[in-house]
This record gives sequence, C-alpha cells and structure tokens, in this order.
Amino acid sequence: MSEKDSLTKFFYPSSVLLVGVSAKEKSIGYEILKQMLSFGFTGKIFITNPNRDEILGIKCHKSIKEIDEKIDLAIILLPKHLVYDSIVECNEKMIKSIIIITAGFREVGDEGAKLEKQIIEFCKANSIRIIGPNCMGLINTSEEIKLNATFAAEVPRYSYISFLSQSGALAAAVLNTIKETGYTFGQFVSIGNKADVNENDLLEFWYSDDKTKIITMYLESFENGREFFHLTKNVTNEKPVIVVKAGRTKSGSRAALSHTGAMASEDDIVNAALTQSNCIRTETIEEMFETAKVLLHLPEIRGNKIAIITNAGGPAILCVDELEKNGLKLADLSDLTKQRLKEIVHPEGSLNNPVDMLPGADAKTYERATKIIAEDENVDALIVIFVEPVMIDAYEVIKSMYDIQKAIKKTMIIVTFPLPNFWNKWKEGNFNDAVILKSIELAPKVIKNVFHYYYTRHKRKNIKESYTLDQKTYNAIKYILMKYETNSSIKEFIKSTDSQLILKRLKLPFINNFYFNNIRELKRNLKNVTFPCVLKASSSIYSHKTEIGGVILDIKSKKELINSFQELSKKLSARNLIQKIDGYEIQTFYKGDVEVIIGAVRDKSFGPVVLFGAGGKFVEVIEDKNFRIAPLSKSDAIELIQSSKIYPILTGYRRTKTNIDELANIVQKISLLIWHFDEIEEIDLNPVIIGKKIKIVDWRIRTNFQ
Amino acid sequence: MSEKDSLTKFFYPSSVLLVGVSAKEKSIGYEILKQMLSFGFTGKIFITNPNRDEILGIKCHKSIKEIDEKIDLAIILLPKHLVYDSIVECNEKMIKSIIIITAGFREVGDEGAKLEKQIIEFCKANSIRIIGPNCMGLINTSEEIKLNATFAAEVPRYSYISFLSQSGALAAAVLNTIKETGYTFGQFVSIGNKADVNENDLLEFWYSDDKTKIITMYLESFENGREFFHLTKNVTNEKPVIVVKAGRTKSGSRAALSHTGAMASEDDIVNAALTQSNCIRTETIEEMFETAKVLLHLPEIRGNKIAIITNAGGPAILCVDELEKNGLKLADLSDLTKQRLKEIVHPEGSLNNPVDMLPGADAKTYERATKIIAEDENVDALIVIFVEPVMIDAYEVIKSMYDIQKAIKKTMIIVTFPLPNFWNKWKEGNFNDAVILKSIELAPKVIKNVFHYYYTRHKRKNIKESYTLDQKTYNAIKYILMKYETNSSIKEFIKSTDSQLILKRLKLPFINNFYFNNIRELKRNLKNVTFPCVLKASSSIYSHKTEIGGVILDIKSKKELINSFQELSKKLSARNLIQKIDGYEIQTFYKGDVEVIIGAVRDKSFGPVVLFGAGGKFVEVIEDKNFRIAPLSKSDAIELIQSSKIYPILTGYRRTKTNIDELANIVQKISLLIWHFDEIEEIDLNPVIIGKKIKIVDWRIRTNFQ
Repeated sequence: MSEKDSLTKFFYPSSVLLVGVSAKEKSIGYEILKQMLSFGFTGKIFITNPNRDEILGIKCHKSIKEIDEKIDLAIILLPKHLVYDSIVECNEKMIKSIIIITAGFREVGDEGAKLEKQIIEFCKANSIRIIGPNCMGLINTSEEIKLNATFAAEVPRYSYISFLSQSGALAAAVLNTIKETGYTFGQFVSIGNKADVNENDLLEFWYSDDKTKIITMYLESFENGREFFHLTKNVTNEKPVIVVKAGRTKSGSRAALSHTGAMASEDDIVNAALTQSNCIRTETIEEMFETAKVLLHLPEIRGNKIAIITNAGGPAILCVDELEKNGLKLADLSDLTKQRLKEIVHPEGSLNNPVDMLPGADAKTYERATKIIAEDENVDALIVIFVEPVMIDAYEVIKSMYDIQKAIKKTMIIVTFPLPNFWNKWKEGNFNDAVILKSIELAPKVIKNVFHYYYTRHKRKNIKESYTLDQKTYNAIKYILMKYETNSSIKEFIKSTDSQLILKRLKLPFINNFYFNNIRELKRNLKNVTFPCVLKASSSIYSHKTEIGGVILDIKSKKELINSFQELSKKLSARNLIQKIDGYEIQTFYKGDVEVIIGAVRDKSFGPVVLFGAGGKFVEVIEDKNFRIAPLSKSDAIELIQSSKIYPILTGYRRTKTNIDELANIVQKISLLIWHFDEIEEIDLNPVIIGKKIKIVDWRIRTNFQ
Repeated sequence: MSEKDSLTKFFYPSSVLLVGVSAKEKSIGYEILKQMLSFGFTGKIFITNPNRDEILGIKCHKSIKEIDEKIDLAIILLPKHLVYDSIVECNEKMIKSIIIITAGFREVGDEGAKLEKQIIEFCKANSIRIIGPNCMGLINTSEEIKLNATFAAEVPRYSYISFLSQSGALAAAVLNTIKETGYTFGQFVSIGNKADVNENDLLEFWYSDDKTKIITMYLESFENGREFFHLTKNVTNEKPVIVVKAGRTKSGSRAALSHTGAMASEDDIVNAALTQSNCIRTETIEEMFETAKVLLHLPEIRGNKIAIITNAGGPAILCVDELEKNGLKLADLSDLTKQRLKEIVHPEGSLNNPVDMLPGADAKTYERATKIIAEDENVDALIVIFVEPVMIDAYEVIKSMYDIQKAIKKTMIIVTFPLPNFWNKWKEGNFNDAVILKSIELAPKVIKNVFHYYYTRHKRKNIKESYTLDQKTYNAIKYILMKYETNSSIKEFIKSTDSQLILKRLKLPFINNFYFNNIRELKRNLKNVTFPCVLKASSSIYSHKTEIGGVILDIKSKKELINSFQELSKKLSARNLIQKIDGYEIQTFYKGDVEVIIGAVRDKSFGPVVLFGAGGKFVEVIEDKNFRIAPLSKSDAIELIQSSKIYPILTGYRRTKTNIDELANIVQKISLLIWHFDEIEEIDLNPVIIGKKIKIVDWRIRTNFQ
C-alpha cells in the first residue's frame, strides 16, 4: 500500500470517531468535538464516553465495539494508560487510521517511550497508521470535507497549500493569529512525536494529492534525513517544498575546525540537503506562508531584475537596500518605458527605478504605470509600494492593484501602509488570493525564494549525468579496504600508503610520497629525492601531522634533508611521540597560491556528505564550509565549488584561473568513494594546493572498522 | 542662541499660523487644520486665505500682516512661487520659526534648488529657523501642547520617545499603522529637504529637552557626519539614540579593494560612526520602536544570559536560534531555581532553560515561575512566550505578565500569540507601557540592542585618554610635509623616502628601505644588504608596486639580487614603465604568518577615518573592513582590532600571540597622523606583517595638494 492510500483516510474520512470525549467545557476532547461541529464536517461523527448519553447533541457510545457503522478515522483523547487498549479495540473494528492526541509518551522519558513502542509495535503488526502521539490533530478545509479535528478555534480559508507542523504549539500560534495574517491552507497536520507517520510519509502523500500544490513544513528534526533528501529532490520538480527548520545547533568550537567531521554542524548538513533538493528554507513562518502564496497565485519569476513603483521615497529606499541584500537587482527600465511613464508620472517624480509617482498618484495612475512597467522586457518582477496619503482613496488604489496582480503575466507584490479603516473594508471582500504585505523587508526575500526555486528547477531539468565509479576502480579499492576488514590489528585511520593507493586508483592528482622508516633507508634513497621537498612524520593515530609538529617544508638540499630528519626525530623523541609514528614520508614541495579542503563524512541522518572550502590558516576566519549530500554529479560538484567563499579567489583577477572542472572531478570522485564504500567514515584531502596545477599534498581516510 | 532656544517654538508654540489654507477637503492645508483642531491644540490657531471668511470655523485672515497677535510658529502651505514672499512677511511679524510643507525645491532640480537657496539666505540673515521644505510637519502629543501639525489622521499616544524622519512618506506609513503597532512618541518631526534644521540640530535640541528620553531617527543621509558623530558620542551617554539609516550603497567592486579609499563604502563609515558613538542601528522601523520601548519602560540589561519561559516548545526553539544569532546566551538556571520551579511546573514540563510549563500553565503558574526565574542571579533578562491554548484565559495570563513586567527589576519581554478577541479587550485598557511582541524573532534582537547600549556606555565612562601627537613629533612631520606644499612639481603620493621618514618620526616598526637608482649604486652598496631581501620598484604614480609586477621577494644572495634587478628593469622597460619609476628599494625580507592592513582616509561627511583588517590575498574573501572615526584613543584602537575577523587568528591557538598593544599603537598613531594633518588624504600601511614581531613592510601616503 502506497503512502497515498495509507494516509488518505486521515485527510478524507467519511466518518470520524472521537474516543474518550469529556463533557467538560474547555477540555481538549470537548473542544475538538465543538470545532468539528462548528466547522461543519461533511461526514459522520461518532464519540465514546461511558458515563454520558450525549455531548453537544452527539450520542455517546459506551465503547468502540458498540458502534455498528464503518469508521475511517479514530482520534484518541483518553488518558495515556488507556490508549493501548483502545487501539486494540479500534483494530477489531478495522479502523486503520488513528490520531493519538494524548501526550505523556516518548517526550517525557523512558516509561513513556516504552508505552509508545508497545503501541507502535502493535500497529505495525496490524497495518495501522498512527499520527502522534502528543499532537494537536488535523485539518482539511476543503469544501467536500470540512474537517477541523483540532482544538484550534480559528480555521484558515481554503487553498492548495498543505502545512505540517512538528510543534502543536507553533501551529496553535499560527492558527490563533490567522484572522490577522490571512494565511490560507487546505490541509494541516500536527505530527507530534512522529511515532509512525512522519514528514517523509506526508511528502509522499502530498506529492500525489491533487489538492496540494505547495508543501510547507515546520520541522525540529528529521526522522530520516537521507530519505527526506531523496523525496524532496523528486517532489520539488513538481511542487515547491518550503521548510522552517528550527533548532540550529551551534557549530563546533573554532579550535576543532580542522577536519571534515568536526566542521560539519548539523545545521550545515540540513542546509546542504535543503539547497541540493531545491527546498526553500525560510527563517520565519511568515516568510514561509507569504512565499507559498506567491508560488500559488502569481506567475513564475524568471530573473532577478526587479522594478519598484511607489508613491513614497523612504520605503522605496529601504526596499532597495533589501533587494541588494537578497542578491536581486534594480531593473534598468527601457527608454520606451520611461517615455511612456513620462505621460503619467508627476513631472517632479522619478522615471527611474524606483519609479516615484509622488503622493498624488491615484488608482488610475498606479494602474497605468504598473501595466507599462510590467511590459518592459528588462523587468522580471514588480514591487508596488503604496503609503496612504490624505487625498487618495486607499481602497481604490489597492483594489486596482489587486486586479492588476491577477491580470498581468509577471509577479507583482503589493506592499502597503493604509489607515486601519482600509483593512476593515478589505476583509469584507473575498480576496484570499491577494499577495499584500505590510512589511517592506519581506517582499525582496519572498521574491528571492521564488526566483531561486524556479531557476534551480529549470537548471536541473536538463542535467543527466552518471553517478557511479566504474567497476574496475571499485574492485581495486574494495581490494585495498578488504585487508582492513580482515586484519585483526586494525587501526582507525588507514595507512598513508594504502590511502595513496586509493587516490591513485581514483586517478586523482596527488603528489607521490616516498615512505621510509629510518636514516639508513633515507640515505639509501637520497638520489631519488627531488628538491625542494617536504618531510613528514606519518601517524595513523594523530589526524593532523602539523598537530605534532611533524611537517618540515621547503627543504632545499640533501644535507638540509638529513639535518631536518635528525631534528624531527629528536623533537618527536623529546615529546615521547616516536612510538606513535608509523614512518616518514618525503614529498616534492609544491607551492601554490591557494589551499582548499575537500572532505567527506557520514552523517547519522543524511548519510555521506561532501565538504569543499578554503583551507590553510584562514579557514577559521573565513568559515568557508560548504556541504552537499553524496553522491554528487559533476554539476553538483561545480555548484558546490561555486557556492564557496573561496570561489572568487579561484577565478579571481590576481592569479591564473583555476581549472574548476578538474577540481570538480576530485570533489565528485571523493563523493563516490564515500558513497560506494560503507566502511569509510571520513575522508580529508587537506590541503589541496592550487597553483598552476592542482595538487593533493596531504590526505587521510578513516574507516569505521572497530 | 542655542539649539534649545531656537527650536523650542517649533515644538512648544503658544500660537500657530497656517499660511495658505485651502477650503478644499482633502487638500493638505485643509487636512492639517482639521487634524490640529481634532487633536485639540492647546494654543491659538490662525490661518490665512484671501478668498474665504472662515474654514472649519476658524476665521481666515487676508494676509499675515493683518493679524494683530504674536505668533510663535508659521506653517507655510502656499504654492512654491509664493513661499519666499510669505517668509518675508513672517519676518516682518517677527515670526522666527517656520515650517515649509510645500514641495518642489531642491528635490526636483536646479531651479527648485535656487529658490530654496534664496529662501535660506534670507532666513539666515534674519535669524529665522526653517524646517523643510518638502516635509510633512510636526507633532507634539504632550498633554500641555497637543499639536498635530501634519496631515496624518492617526496620532500616537504620548511617551518620552522623540522621532525624526527624513522621509515624510515613511513617517506616514508609521502613523497610518499606529493603531495596530501601538508605537508611542511625544515629539515627531519630518525634516524634508533639511534646508536649515537637520538631524544635528534636533539631536542638540532633544538632548536638552526634558520631555525626551529616547531619540529615534529614520535617516537617508547625514548633513554633516562628523558633527553627528561628535554630538551622538555625547548624547548617548545620557539618552539612547536609535537610527535606521536607509540607502546603503553598494561597496566598491571586488577588484578595487586594494587600498583604504576604495575599501571604505559609505555604509562602512556610517556603521563605524554609529558603533563608535554608541548609537543603536536597527534594520527596521519596527525594531527601532520596540527597542525604544524597552529602553524607556524596562530596567537596564546587565548581561547576555537570557531565560525563556514558555507554554509551547516550538516557539521557544525558534527563539533560542535567534538568541544565538544575536550573540546572546541561554542562562544556566541555578539548582535552587530548578528546585523551586519543580513545585510549580507540570511534571512532564522542562525545568531547564527554556522552561516549558506545557499548555496547562495558567496566570498563577506563569506569575510564580517568572518571579522565581527573575530572582536567579544567572539570569540577565527574560523572554516570556505564551501561545493561547483552549483551556486558558489569555487575558488573565498576559495581564498578569504585564504586571510582573512592571514590578520586577529585570527586563522581561512578552511574546504572545493569543486569539484575535484578546487584542480587542486589551486595547480597551491603557497599557501603553507594555512591551508585548507578536514576533519571536524580534525579542532577541531588541534585547541585544539594549544590552549592548548599556554595556558600551558603562565601559566608556571610565576611559580617559589623550588623543594628540606630541609637539615635537608634530613639528617634525609638518616640516616634511611643508616641502610638498611649496614644491611646484608636486606629486599626489609623497615619496617613499619621505613617508619612511614620517613613519620614523612616529616611531613605528617599519623595515628600513635602502633606496637606489641604478645598477652602479646597487653594486656600490651590495655589502650593506642583508639576505634574504626584497627588491621593489617604487613609483609615486602607481599605488601598488605589485600592480606593475615591481616586487621580487625572498632574494637569497648578492648574485641573485643583481640578476633580479636586471630582470626587473628589463620587464619594466618592456612594459614602458621605466619612466614612471622613481627609483628602487631594497628591504630585508620579513616572513610572518599573517598580513594586515592599517589605513586611513578622509570621508567627505565624517572626516578622517581609520581602517584595520586582514591583508594579503584573502582580503576580498574575508571582507574584513573595520573602520573607526579618527582620532582614536588607545582603547578605541584595541576595540577596532578586536572587531576584525582576523582578530581570532591574531590571538589564535596555532601561533604565537600577537602583541595587540603594539598593533593598537600603530593604529592609533595613524589615526593621529591623518587627524592632525589636513594635507594628508589617505594612508596605507599594507601589508603590515605579523610574525614574531610586527613589521610594516610597505606604505604610502597620499596628499591632497593639487
């Protein structure tokens, strides 16, 4: 059974049973029943309460089994110790869709968690789907259902937006203020503890639900990040997914930013997954719903050139500031447009963008100017600002702008500051599809979100690339790793010689190491050393050679090399580190201009992820941490590199241009390496030095063999 | 006459004359008169209109001179070509305070500017002060004045906040929505074109006005940035100044970020001035007024440790995210606090910060918990979140929180999401001093603003430092610069030899240059060169030696030096640059770990400013541009260095700690250099190399001699 089928009865039930309704006003069960009745549920309502005959005019059944008719959806309101038994009874009546409103499970500790587990085990065994526990219910405002199975008194007007909230309270806050905000949505669900149904199930359900065109989510955690990523990557090709993800944990302390694992904060990876799957991540709930509205009601935005039309200078200037912050541009209006505007706009106004028509501009002026500007090819979207002046009728202007918003083929957002009376009159009308903001700052953010969504969707449509290592390379690497799997004296980091071999199999541009163990071996091989060279102590315990002072750069001669080696061994001995050294390495010294880090690590929820960013000593200052979910296509890899702060330097004016394609090749292969081999936990190529060529000069691979 | 006296009659007039009131409804004059009457101005109102007997019950005078009584303030509404004459008439009647509402002056072009200039010249000559032209008037809501001389229909409730707006329309937007926002202020002024009275005059006036405790400003430009800086530096010791500065211009293109002048965008300098003078800069008008409210009504915030009390998990998590973004911390509650909370909070709630009392918490619970937490020494401020649940009376909870907010000795901000009915009831009460936000995101921002204001004010109180160069140093440098003043063959950049001398006089740690002109001079002095060395071509035309390929680093021997010199001359000849070279320099090569830039430049509005930031090739990526207004005290200089992104590297764990005091000394002396010598336009010490020591290795000083 697909998600579509298994969740349908939650949102489209013909009959709903409320289990354990109290007759006490203000109790949750009583309030849910009241809301269901007052919102006018189109199906049948059944309730149980062993001590009453009726509540709010609905007959009380003594128990579930007493009910004769078929029931699609049960909502359980009982105290937690009665929940399990009631589910068993539901099952006997073949009720397979159950919402548990009751709290006191996993969220309060071990005992609750145990109870929750028992319930879920029973449900799994009997093909029952559960929403909750510890949730606030579900709403479907669609005309043929009219279900408000929550204790929220306010209900939104219908639209094709669906909304999931991991927090019942956050949803309550949204619903409490819905008269003021005017947000609309068709389906709402509060998923509480996510004991069974989670955000991934709902993504699948809403993907195939005809009544859903935009998916919005407030999330505090991901049940299975990797699955979420794969689902949204697919869903966003057809339906936008907008996410507020709360609970950004702090990134690790600065001192720890020396390898991929420590650099990857949970929030970095969430960001990577959301970016890569083309979800829109917003900072606030307000931004989420306003973005949804624009996506639902207004035309596609195909570029970042914005025109502002205003009757007031100040707000327009603030708006321009926000445009720039959001990477949008003020459109250059064409000469023709300016010529046409000249006939309309007050001679002391401004014909340049922002077009300032001065306070005298009335509905007619706004209408004509907006139409002219919308026709300008240089304009991708419009922001119309209207501050109500004394001499102008605000209702006329805003109503005419609303009509234009619906009529023109470009997205136009209205930002307005009318007197309070306006809103009273406006709310009498039925303008749910109007996009009218009361905040200057929000309009550019929303436009950026929408533009970026479409831009990415189109760009990705045409990309078809392969994502796997060829069989021969795979086998060769598997062979190297197998040794570790069977070896009893396993070490966490695989040996430098072996990791060098892996890089070689991947055909990556590393600088060859010459390995040796003592002065005798060194002297015997001196003739093969190219100067200047680098001497390193290698250790599979210490992740960073520089940490133990184990690197000497730019050695110019044989004599200097011998001296350096003796110095190094002496230093390591003095610090009691000599036993922890696996051996020594000599490498030709490569001096470039820029150092980058390429890495990969396995995240618990999102699986393998890849890192690209600035390396070297500035890494902490720049905080150039850019992640993507592995495996990466070549274009994913290029996108990752382009998203870094170091990118302008790589392509900058002061130096030879970096071969980005070659760099992307390394990034992609590293993503494939961690993707194919579950035994690899973390990979660091650090630094990768970029000069005339690209050279990997240090690397390490950590396995998860114990 | 001080600003206090010259502006008093604008805000505290006993009689107001409206010049040129139209009898037409919705005309600006008519509306201003209507608002003045309906708001109940406590003084006398006179109007002129040659064609009418009365308007709105007020007798019309044919002309100004016809009026017998003394008039404090005139407001001119006439068409622009009549304005000058009416001011002459006002002057004859000894009216010295005039607001010109009329538009069409400087803002519309040259002709308007000319007219404006004529008017101002007349006013200056006759000691008349002008507000406007092109403004929307002035409000004083104080009980004894009750003046609404604007055409805004909505008027705020009184408070000790004063508000200036450079944009009339922005102010109109604020006033239009005042019923919804509940902002309060006592005095408001729209300053339009700032032909005479500007933000600096108002700063002075409000500084000494007893009715003003908080100053808020929406600005689009600074009339005289230097003066603004000096005034606010003083004012903010007693009264907070909160500024929204719109019109952030883009910083220069990346390619140009190579010297101080090009790096200093207008907005960087505005930021520097506002930071240094302890103004609070907010992003939005909303943030400005809510910050003002907290400053006005709630106690000082003495630390950054915040407690969150909530009945809802989701909003609290979003709030924690915002705390972190704003550099605030979640307070660790003491064991005693937790113990005391345990008796109140639902057993399944959370006693850790954020304290989650679950939806069942009522007014009593909120009250007790809030009091307990406020008593915890680890808590500096509180955020109380309340989402209205079905079973709880929102009015009771919020009213009791409001009472606590007024009673406790710590700042407590209420964030709430009640049902719409709540607000209707709430507005009936008289709770203007309540700080209640409807946005989770805003509370941490406001707390940060207030905390930072007090923190800085205290810190600066105890600092007394000298700000000048000693006379001897001054004279020595003056002597060097005088040569340029009198020399006919002046060059824009002063010679490297001379600027080296200036650094020497300032006792700064530069690396000595040996200057020479040709191979002969070089060979003669070879014995004095210390290796490794650096060879540079110096030019007073090219600002950067590297731009013309004129720098060769790390030269190891005499032979290499000769070769390098020949190569360099050949290269310069080939590129036809040899004529542009003043000579050559040799410097001992100094290799450090970090490069910084220290610079100074003269801004048109704010005067000399100082730059400190990361140098070298990463400068564009890091964008580490930190400015301060010169001259700097030693602690200013340290603050400047600490505010840089490179600072953690300078004091970082991977390297020897930098002598910040010595670095600050360089910064301070550079600030004094540009401060004392008006003839210096720009100074660049770039790079200043930081290794075991601090060494200035390259420098240039640009003068403004033509």
